[in-house]
Amino acid sequence: MGYELHYWPMIQGRGEFVRLALEQAGADYVDVARQPHDAGGGIDAMMARMGDEPGSSGNFRPPFAPPFLVDGDLVIGQTANILLYLGPRLGLVGTSEADRIWTHQIQLTIADVVLEAHDTHHPIAVMDYYEEQRPEAAKRARDFRENRIPKYLGWFERVLARNPAGPGRLVGDAVSYADLSLFQLVDGLRYAFPKASDRGLADMPRVTALVQTMGRLPRIAAYLASDRRIAFNEQGIFRRYPELDG
Amino acid sequence: MGYELHYWPMIQGRGEFVRLALEQAGADYVDVARQPHDAGGGIDAMMARMGDEPGSSGNFRPPFAPPFLVDGDLVIGQTANILLYLGPRLGLVGTSEADRIWTHQIQLTIADVVLEAHDTHHPIAVMDYYEEQRPEAAKRARDFRENRIPKYLGWFERVLARNPAGPGRLVGDAVSYADLSLFQLVDGLRYAFPKASDRGLADMPRVTALVQTMGRLPRIAAYLASDRRIAFNEQGIFRRYPELDG
Repeated sequence: MGYELHYWPMIQGRGEFVRLALEQAGADYVDVARQPHDAGGGIDAMMARMGDEPGSSGNFRPPFAPPFLVDGDLVIGQTANILLYLGPRLGLVGTSEADRIWTHQIQLTIADVVLEAHDTHHPIAVMDYYEEQRPEAAKRARDFRENRIPKYLGWFERVLARNPAGPGRLVGDAVSYADLSLFQLVDGLRYAFPKASDRGLADMPRVTALVQTMGRLPRIAAYLASDRRIAFNEQGIFRRYPELDG
Repeated sequence: MGYELHYWPMIQGRGEFVRLALEQAGADYVDVARQPHDAGGGIDAMMARMGDEPGSSGNFRPPFAPPFLVDGDLVIGQTANILLYLGPRLGLVGTSEADRIWTHQIQLTIADVVLEAHDTHHPIAVMDYYEEQRPEAAKRARDFRENRIPKYLGWFERVLARNPAGPGRLVGDAVSYADLSLFQLVDGLRYAFPKASDRGLADMPRVTALVQTMGRLPRIAAYLASDRRIAFNEQGIFRRYPELDG
């Protein structure tokens, strides 16, 4: 019985961080909401499984929001938490507690950047349209480009530079889910903010190299070339609105 | 040798979630930046220990930001990650992996609300003053009051209602760090948004009861009455700006 991943079927979003880990490990999984309705898939199936509708008698530990992972009786929400759970099972984290807690710490910092990237187009209200908060988005995006991207990328660069096992990985010398997530973060930033990202990455050789290496891992490259990889688009977290780049 | 907690000495902020866990456990810890300079304390000591200054040769696993915990050779950042690490050591989380991953999931959702509460007064740029982003703050705070507070409180209420061990705790029947963090979250919301919080809590009897219970735990009550508890203020995450409540 494989893993069930439940996430919005039309975007990479936060689910993509989980997909990349599952793909790199060659894990047996089903992306439930992307399956046909008559095969038990679709958004309805996801929402039912989330068990969070009024009157639902389902799962007694309901996630707050997708993505969530189902593994047998366990229903696990929060992206970084899913990766914390999957890491040891997929061989994508070190075996010591020190390595695991550090890998998770990096993942949580990646999650912080992801949310800030989201908030560049939704600085006021997550349920409203971007078009309803464009002036505020322009201001927030400017701060993100000028201050936050350099600050975060600089931290990842330092983490790589200080890794005693060498700058090729974030933690130790093996691929961790944090390496894959940093790939996804930078890939998203490059999509949404091509100019600001190029500028920010110009003096970050270790981050640039890591991202290139991750994208060329055979399983990741095959995944990225497959139709399982949803294209970036303007419903996701990383959106290309040229007026927000610069 | 006790734990070292490193956090900004003038605010509760994110450090408070760690402080409450340490206090409830009666743990041996030092709040480093609040100690006198001549005793090795102060913000300078914290920044040096963070090892994140240019040219620093210190800690090779530098946290992105305070709070961070030092336990022997380990330096651990990210609030939820610190609690993940401390939980088993302080007896503030269940012993099963299922309980631990669920407790952490709740903690990460609390962290999401905390960040949203922060962004009500800093919707545009974290390093700028509130006074520079007041119109945007008014808009974001309105959405937070009207949509986000009810949605999050409703989720915590459901989590309590569905706990098979009863609605007195978030996970199982013992106090977890998530229970203490929910206390802190609600206490902060009540400080920053007294009107909106009262409205939101009116039909959340389980959340209301849990928060009251946590505040009356003997060690927590003693801590809250001590000078170790910093008062809420307008430099922290939860700020009382009457124009943002309503």
